[in-house]
Amino acid sequence: MARSYDYLRDGAAIYAESFATIRREARLEGLSREQAQVAVRVIHACGRVDITEHLALTPGAVAAGREALRAGRPILCDSRMVAHGITTARLPAANEVCCTLDDPRVPERARAIGNTRTAAALDLWGERLDGAVVAIGNAPTALFHLLELIDEGAPPPAVVIGMPVGMVGAAEAKAALAGHEALASIVVHGRQGGSAMAVAAVNALASERED
Amino acid sequence: MARSYDYLRDGAAIYAESFATIRREARLEGLSREQAQVAVRVIHACGRVDITEHLALTPGAVAAGREALRAGRPILCDSRMVAHGITTARLPAANEVCCTLDDPRVPERARAIGNTRTAAALDLWGERLDGAVVAIGNAPTALFHLLELIDEGAPPPAVVIGMPVGMVGAAEAKAALAGHEALASIVVHGRQGGSAMAVAAVNALASERED
Repeated sequence: MARSYDYLRDGAAIYAESFATIRREARLEGLSREQAQVAVRVIHACGRVDITEHLALTPGAVAAGREALRAGRPILCDSRMVAHGITTARLPAANEVCCTLDDPRVPERARAIGNTRTAAALDLWGERLDGAVVAIGNAPTALFHLLELIDEGAPPPAVVIGMPVGMVGAAEAKAALAGHEALASIVVHGRQGGSAMAVAAVNALASERED
Repeated sequence: MARSYDYLRDGAAIYAESFATIRREARLEGLSREQAQVAVRVIHACGRVDITEHLALTPGAVAAGREALRAGRPILCDSRMVAHGITTARLPAANEVCCTLDDPRVPERARAIGNTRTAAALDLWGERLDGAVVAIGNAPTALFHLLELIDEGAPPPAVVIGMPVGMVGAAEAKAALAGHEALASIVVHGRQGGSAMAVAAVNALASERED
């Protein structure tokens, strides 16, 4: 049976209407212009205007992330989904997008440190961590292990997007990140989060364009 | 400053505690055992036990999807994030995971049909659609265009996972899918959805293992 579906088919018009709807419905007061740009894209990624209740950004986190990207620093991701979701055309300096989870050394490293493979993969980031944008959208263990590495003297990233998801450790890892005095962070507190929200935050840092 | 963080580091233990928490907190009554397996993984992907309020599965959708995967049918995805999130080790027949969005013919096709590139990419699925598992985790236009293709006589897939996200068209596209008499579907109604939830549904069809 042939039906016709009435829907917007123009990508630019869809983006414009989406972001207008978000800015109309979301409570963005109390956020700076730059923070609101991040909030709007995170809402766009999850379909919930009330996610702002759980969003926390340290002062200067957005500026630090944007400066790092303009300076060509890499984006380090905990999962393939995050790495593959980042819109490379938005990046200001053809920045490297790096996920080390598939490195063949990871399983042995995980056994050696007694942690998950996602956490162990961070041990391969090395000096790239220095001034980088880190995006954690999957594993609480990765975020906890990042904090351990920093505390042990690893070079600090410019900003940490902390949005792991789930029932076990996610809320706790994000609370530890947000409370870490040495790190700029963008966090969705609680159990919610995920790769799409982490990607949205990276995309917001990469460009102010709302498309 | 060296701190120690107290958190579960064993992947299997994390999965077990996560799924036990979900089954304790989520309202799964009224779902069959197979439907509950999908619901649990979707909750796991978004961190919200109340997402079940928006989840709708047609009778037999889970069985149809599982049979299609066992029979070696492909998984057709609207976005790179969905394609890259699927755990290939869970697939029962080394099934093809296909996303045609990067095909060089897509931009011209989008202009020709006056739709988004994500929608136009579906025109390249061709006969692979027959009996396939379709996973839409990003674009409402892709889901609407899928319905148009089916109505115009394209071979029907075994099941459609309809979980596009957003403010414009997502709720409407999913309502149209769930109301389509010829299609088995697994839907998260409303604005919520996204690639992580779509991946979770595919992973639940691929294997009953909760890890």
